[in-house]
Amino acid sequence: MSEPLGHSADLPTIGVSMGDPLGVGPEVIVKALADPALRARGRFVIYGLGAPLHAAAEKASTDPFWWRVENDSPVVDAAIGRRVVVRDYESLADAWRPALSGVAPGPTRAAGQASFQFIEDAIADAKRPEGDARRLDAIVTAPINKEAWALAGRGKYAGHTELLTTRFGAKRSAMLFVAPRLRVVLATVHIPLSEIAQRLTIGRVHDPIDLGYEACLDLGIARPRIAVCGLNPHAGENGLFGDEESRLITPAIQAACEAGIDVRGPFPADTIFNRALNGEFDLVVAMYHDQGLIPVKLLARDEAVNVTIGLPVVRTSPDHGTAFDIAGAGVADAGSMRAALALAIDMTSARNRRAERVQS
Amino acid sequence: MSEPLGHSADLPTIGVSMGDPLGVGPEVIVKALADPALRARGRFVIYGLGAPLHAAAEKASTDPFWWRVENDSPVVDAAIGRRVVVRDYESLADAWRPALSGVAPGPTRAAGQASFQFIEDAIADAKRPEGDARRLDAIVTAPINKEAWALAGRGKYAGHTELLTTRFGAKRSAMLFVAPRLRVVLATVHIPLSEIAQRLTIGRVHDPIDLGYEACLDLGIARPRIAVCGLNPHAGENGLFGDEESRLITPAIQAACEAGIDVRGPFPADTIFNRALNGEFDLVVAMYHDQGLIPVKLLARDEAVNVTIGLPVVRTSPDHGTAFDIAGAGVADAGSMRAALALAIDMTSARNRRAERVQS
Repeated sequence: MSEPLGHSADLPTIGVSMGDPLGVGPEVIVKALADPALRARGRFVIYGLGAPLHAAAEKASTDPFWWRVENDSPVVDAAIGRRVVVRDYESLADAWRPALSGVAPGPTRAAGQASFQFIEDAIADAKRPEGDARRLDAIVTAPINKEAWALAGRGKYAGHTELLTTRFGAKRSAMLFVAPRLRVVLATVHIPLSEIAQRLTIGRVHDPIDLGYEACLDLGIARPRIAVCGLNPHAGENGLFGDEESRLITPAIQAACEAGIDVRGPFPADTIFNRALNGEFDLVVAMYHDQGLIPVKLLARDEAVNVTIGLPVVRTSPDHGTAFDIAGAGVADAGSMRAALALAIDMTSARNRRAERVQS
Repeated sequence: MSEPLGHSADLPTIGVSMGDPLGVGPEVIVKALADPALRARGRFVIYGLGAPLHAAAEKASTDPFWWRVENDSPVVDAAIGRRVVVRDYESLADAWRPALSGVAPGPTRAAGQASFQFIEDAIADAKRPEGDARRLDAIVTAPINKEAWALAGRGKYAGHTELLTTRFGAKRSAMLFVAPRLRVVLATVHIPLSEIAQRLTIGRVHDPIDLGYEACLDLGIARPRIAVCGLNPHAGENGLFGDEESRLITPAIQAACEAGIDVRGPFPADTIFNRALNGEFDLVVAMYHDQGLIPVKLLARDEAVNVTIGLPVVRTSPDHGTAFDIAGAGVADAGSMRAALALAIDMTSARNRRAERVQS
């Protein structure tokens, strides 16, 4: 059932880590890649378990469209060049067993071990040298469960993002969210609200501006226009409600301006998203999680994509969790995974075109 | 041109304070009340200057639809019962003079004095006893400028809300925003982000739940269902990113539940607004300014209404400022003022019906 080899040499190779096999990962991967138009745009290597993919395909009345290969098999290289390859981790197959027993899914040690191994191997392949047939251009990750990682002894990583940043030795990284009409990058992420102001520095505001600018180029935006949110209500109203705007945010904006980036602010956060929606800006830099994610999720509940920027590899993921409560029911919306795969392809292509221009 | 007295005895009397005469207040008042269908639903007393209203009507090609009376005139009572009365403050007419000279509008002492006097007199009329012909049922305020109030020696009041709370001796009040598809009440308003966590108390979370519940009844919602946001990302994720959820928010919710209010939370702020939009909740309690106003302004840029709840009088206002930059140009959108007037009428009627039910 898998497509012929064809002329796929120029297509980007996208690694897809299944995430927690007990979550909705397998289902959204199958549903998203069931679209031949999406498959035609890249080569896909799924790091995961064959059984939940088959179960998801059956539930969705889709014929399996992938070439399965045992992960540890010496013939794994035979799959190179196939349009969709599943690297099936037979030795970890037990992780999916609870799903067959009718037990309500939740965090388990076995599933934590499995989802950790999938992303580790995808990272290893992304690190292969240019020209290596197994090299990945991008990694798309289905959701993992933090508690399962902790049960598997991997609790020091809060998630995929932290692991990727560590493994690639990235000095700086940031979370970018891409919705159909809005792009938002965060200066801080998972910290208590009371600590945001003290954790913010000029550098922590400058990084998402700078990395966000590069990401916009990867998104095919030739001259990115960037808006930066204030931290305080009304962006502090000239120091009336806080001074982080003048102490931290404005200096970071000025530094980025001097480096040639078209960036303005700080703007009151309650009106700047409308201006971005109206086309005035390509990217909004938010100071903290809810400031950026409230508008993103309000505008694009099932289509937002999370992008880790600052890595040498393109990395995208759907903007939802394992959703254990609906896993296996066949009702998960694959819109965000579809968008994450498409964006990974687009960003890889744009990045390659930029690299070619630099070289020529 | 004013409507005949007619049978308007049962109609609510809405006081409209003009706000800063150099801002867009006069224009949005004229444009909103130019609608005969809106005028038919109440009696309106405008506290302000006649000249900018006339100028706005001329610019909008609208015939003046009001009955003008000099504010200090002994015949002011003759206007009682008219559909739209303008109490023209001749002694403060100079405040509008800069608009005639072509000077770009900005904060002035004279305009600050005028806008302060308008709201003071409206408050005095709202305090009149039941049955007094000049009593107001509700106050709708056009925007003032804080700097102008400071120039006029009234800087101790940050705005209308603070003055109203003081004058009515209200122990508790809160800001409620009503958009076409979303209602949001704030636990804190104009304070630096770094101080929110320390200023939040169980009482400061409980007040907007309790006052918001009462306001929902005034909005005609028989059994309000209320959702409360967490303070931290993912509502703290079980204490992982902050503990205000368990220390402050949950106890406030429990207290409200025990008082018979249908309230749930704390919920992650980045997804709860979608659930409210989908009809699951009638009101969302936000912990701070941007958390509540980002979704409100994203959904209803020109139609959101600000309601001060906890006062003995209904008070609404449009969700925008003086907009000095476009004042006098005739391009201001009156949507929010129209909505503020309509909401004041609706809330007054619902409040009166509730009072009748209690009495009978």
